[in-house]
Amino acid sequence: MLGLMQDVPLLVSSLIKHADRHHGDVEIVSRRVEGDIHRTTYRELHARARRLANALEALGVGMSDRVATLAWNGYRHMELYYGVAGKGAVVHTINPRLPAEQIAWITQHADDMLLFFDLTFLPIVEAIAAQCPTVKGWVAMTDAAHMPTAAAIPNLLCYEDLLAAQSERYEWPTFDERLASSMCYTSGTTGNPKGALYSHRSTLLHTFAVALPDALSFGARDAILPVVPMFHVNAWGIPYAAAMVGAKLVFPGPALDGKSLHALIEQEKVTVSAGVPTVWQGLLAHMEQNALRFSTMRRTIVGGAALPPAMLRTFEEKYGVTAIHAWGMTELSPVGTVCAPRPKHDDGAAEEQLRVKAKQGRAVFGVDMKIVDAAGKDLPWDGVAFGDLLVRGPWVVSGYFRGEGGDPLVTDAAGLAWFPTGDVATIDADGYMQITDRSKDVIKSGGEWISSIDIENVALSHPAVAMSACIGVAHPKWDERPLLVVVRKAGTSVTREEILRHYEGRVAKWQIPDDVAFVDAIPMGATGKMLKNRLREQFRDHRLPTA
Amino acid sequence: MLGLMQDVPLLVSSLIKHADRHHGDVEIVSRRVEGDIHRTTYRELHARARRLANALEALGVGMSDRVATLAWNGYRHMELYYGVAGKGAVVHTINPRLPAEQIAWITQHADDMLLFFDLTFLPIVEAIAAQCPTVKGWVAMTDAAHMPTAAAIPNLLCYEDLLAAQSERYEWPTFDERLASSMCYTSGTTGNPKGALYSHRSTLLHTFAVALPDALSFGARDAILPVVPMFHVNAWGIPYAAAMVGAKLVFPGPALDGKSLHALIEQEKVTVSAGVPTVWQGLLAHMEQNALRFSTMRRTIVGGAALPPAMLRTFEEKYGVTAIHAWGMTELSPVGTVCAPRPKHDDGAAEEQLRVKAKQGRAVFGVDMKIVDAAGKDLPWDGVAFGDLLVRGPWVVSGYFRGEGGDPLVTDAAGLAWFPTGDVATIDADGYMQITDRSKDVIKSGGEWISSIDIENVALSHPAVAMSACIGVAHPKWDERPLLVVVRKAGTSVTREEILRHYEGRVAKWQIPDDVAFVDAIPMGATGKMLKNRLREQFRDHRLPTA
Repeated sequence: MLGLMQDVPLLVSSLIKHADRHHGDVEIVSRRVEGDIHRTTYRELHARARRLANALEALGVGMSDRVATLAWNGYRHMELYYGVAGKGAVVHTINPRLPAEQIAWITQHADDMLLFFDLTFLPIVEAIAAQCPTVKGWVAMTDAAHMPTAAAIPNLLCYEDLLAAQSERYEWPTFDERLASSMCYTSGTTGNPKGALYSHRSTLLHTFAVALPDALSFGARDAILPVVPMFHVNAWGIPYAAAMVGAKLVFPGPALDGKSLHALIEQEKVTVSAGVPTVWQGLLAHMEQNALRFSTMRRTIVGGAALPPAMLRTFEEKYGVTAIHAWGMTELSPVGTVCAPRPKHDDGAAEEQLRVKAKQGRAVFGVDMKIVDAAGKDLPWDGVAFGDLLVRGPWVVSGYFRGEGGDPLVTDAAGLAWFPTGDVATIDADGYMQITDRSKDVIKSGGEWISSIDIENVALSHPAVAMSACIGVAHPKWDERPLLVVVRKAGTSVTREEILRHYEGRVAKWQIPDDVAFVDAIPMGATGKMLKNRLREQFRDHRLPTA
Repeated sequence: MLGLMQDVPLLVSSLIKHADRHHGDVEIVSRRVEGDIHRTTYRELHARARRLANALEALGVGMSDRVATLAWNGYRHMELYYGVAGKGAVVHTINPRLPAEQIAWITQHADDMLLFFDLTFLPIVEAIAAQCPTVKGWVAMTDAAHMPTAAAIPNLLCYEDLLAAQSERYEWPTFDERLASSMCYTSGTTGNPKGALYSHRSTLLHTFAVALPDALSFGARDAILPVVPMFHVNAWGIPYAAAMVGAKLVFPGPALDGKSLHALIEQEKVTVSAGVPTVWQGLLAHMEQNALRFSTMRRTIVGGAALPPAMLRTFEEKYGVTAIHAWGMTELSPVGTVCAPRPKHDDGAAEEQLRVKAKQGRAVFGVDMKIVDAAGKDLPWDGVAFGDLLVRGPWVVSGYFRGEGGDPLVTDAAGLAWFPTGDVATIDADGYMQITDRSKDVIKSGGEWISSIDIENVALSHPAVAMSACIGVAHPKWDERPLLVVVRKAGTSVTREEILRHYEGRVAKWQIPDDVAFVDAIPMGATGKMLKNRLREQFRDHRLPTA
């Protein structure tokens, strides 16, 4: 017997409609590619999203057609989030930091029909335009005055002209909430990039979950600065969650340096921000150098890579900003866990509190998780046993676009299908998950596993270390032993011996790296992750002194 | 094109599974009918809910069968919430404050198969057992030691014996999320009671929405005291929301007096409570008499009836407790709006802040609302125009059980179906809704409408007034004019003239009541609302001095 409740589907368009009706005059502030600060409101943004939907209609975009973006965080990108998905098409955000040939490959694999780009990315568009046969039109996200002139791009269109030519009158269609709404390709460190295809339903459920008090905790009193890019994993769902709760949005555009971010945070009275550790490193360094403070910012959400304990301490103790550790991935829409404390932690010592906060956190409702051993057997939640992390839930992928990579799910003894994250983790008795490593990065030393992340974090706690990567290098007796690759802070001259000494008493003796190699830079991927594959290649023939 | 997300339905069982796995040792504390304080955890409650599911199976309860409850807020009632709905049956909560013959009528209309009751309600069960032909078994929610002996009830069963006879092994089934999960009849001040039939989907979406920061804002650090009854509108969804976020739950059982509530709040370190104004009146009176304070309680959610401004002020100014005004109804699962402030209100004067907080608040995401005039035309959101309040959304009824009362929805010019709430309201430019009256209670004086609630609130701000009701009485010139019915506080002797003088400068001159009638008590319905129908009957022939 069915319940007798109204049959109202969960649609992305309902978010912007709600924001317009109930929070119409709340501001959306963007630092633009053009250089200035732009201000709009949910009401205006909704009107422009409707114009955009009419423009897409005029350009022949139909249900489920893919519309690509190469863009920073800004109001026009948000209009695309709502205008494209709202009309039933799929907004396909592309990471501009990927190699040009990969971007071209992705547009073809996704069958992108239009591509919208910020002017910053004109060179990319010029480089790939000839290799993107599916793309029928290239839309520069700017006005007529700023349009590129000599660009060799076929069918180059002007965003503001497209909108100006259309009416604001548009009724968002109603359809099956399981239809695709947006798309994002994984960074593809191995093999071809694979497309995660989000649905309206998964997006709305994820939005509810991330806005909860123990997740990102968003309300109408917040002014949210998403530094995490809208071109990757939907900026952790913030463009949706902010609209759901009517929070002010502050978009940093292309200016992600510490000085620009700090100025924006202060000027726009930002209360909460979200980003990867490398961005916060730049912000904290700028603040330290200029003896700056935060006037309004109370919380920052850190994900994309593990939050280094030293950074957590700086945020909390020096600046009074609660640093909230979160974990997710493209295949999880992306949020899986957030590290919200329990009442029992309030009474703990500061050190114990930091230890808990350094974990990736508890599963938000909707995501179920478990850890299993190599045979797929469940491992205990004791904070010690570690194994492959599996997840399931209504915003976890069931497969990739066009079946790329085959069926990614594994089925357990109870018949439930789980997505293997590729992470190795522990889960403690309170449900706090901690990534110990990527499955492929863990160092297998004589049957014991050493977490490369743990080793890197110890290095980062040394005052002279700017960056560090720990990789396994072949060893005749132990199969693999850890090699620490270090970038020194400018002006320092720390030695191999000093760094190795720094490990004493901080990790078990057998986990101390066998050697240290100093480099000028560590190769980084398009989503800000260290490319350890490349390092492993570079140091393949490195001879450990212990070998 | 469908998205490629896992097909995981929204089921009530997923809430208790999540609470067990991720918050297993969090406490659920209940004051029992037996008189003592009982402590359990989500893990144990989940195990007992599985035993219950096996017991229901053994008793022949199948998919969508109705299982009724007559019970206070407590852990056994919560086990029924999860055990019954989790296995695909429908938990039908019955309000024990309804007249016995109405309860019997409801069990028959709902086709209830079993009825679970707290010992308090044994007299009701004894009175109705013979008139409930559909009920095959009556389960006393107690243990063998407390079982009633001489009760003339056919097939009387013992709850604890049922559970003890069963295994904890039970796998919650997976099914269509639109299936019915629970049921609640409206109080039925006019006509027969009508059954609202909630689905698993509507319940889960409502749970997400009410837990949001700008709604009830629940997290794992909270200890929640739902005084609002689980026997009516699912205690505003708290038994579900607490499990979703892993909050501690504190159930008051039958002891709703000020002394018992205050003791429980202090002993169990309650951080947030929820209830109707009449309950808080008792609590505040007890605290005032005994010069008590709150040590841990920071917020209280007030709904079910308008939050009197004087009460709001007492909570906030005297006790430092944020009083949050909420509004809903049985047909809305029940939450529709919550009064969360915006940043712009922070700078306002205290008086202006109180004025906003006295409103019923903003629509939570998922609920859309509008006000219309008698012709169904949309009225402006200016805080002045008032009209019939209509709502829609995935947790709003589409109809009543067995089609009772016909199709309740109205369709607007855009083709959207809305539920008419029967309330008259304003909505201001910021989206804050304020109920000005029930459609049937508004006083129509010469073409102008007078809000009975406004007039009552002014009376309540007089120190000698304990309760007040304003009703329209026939008038030869103005059709209707307001009569104020007053219950004096014990030991006071305020006069008609003093009360009327109290209105001067507080409302427009033409809104001042024409007369005051003093009574010993105002008749109250089963859900704590004043029965103005009865008052109108009682004073039908009252001759106004102005007539």
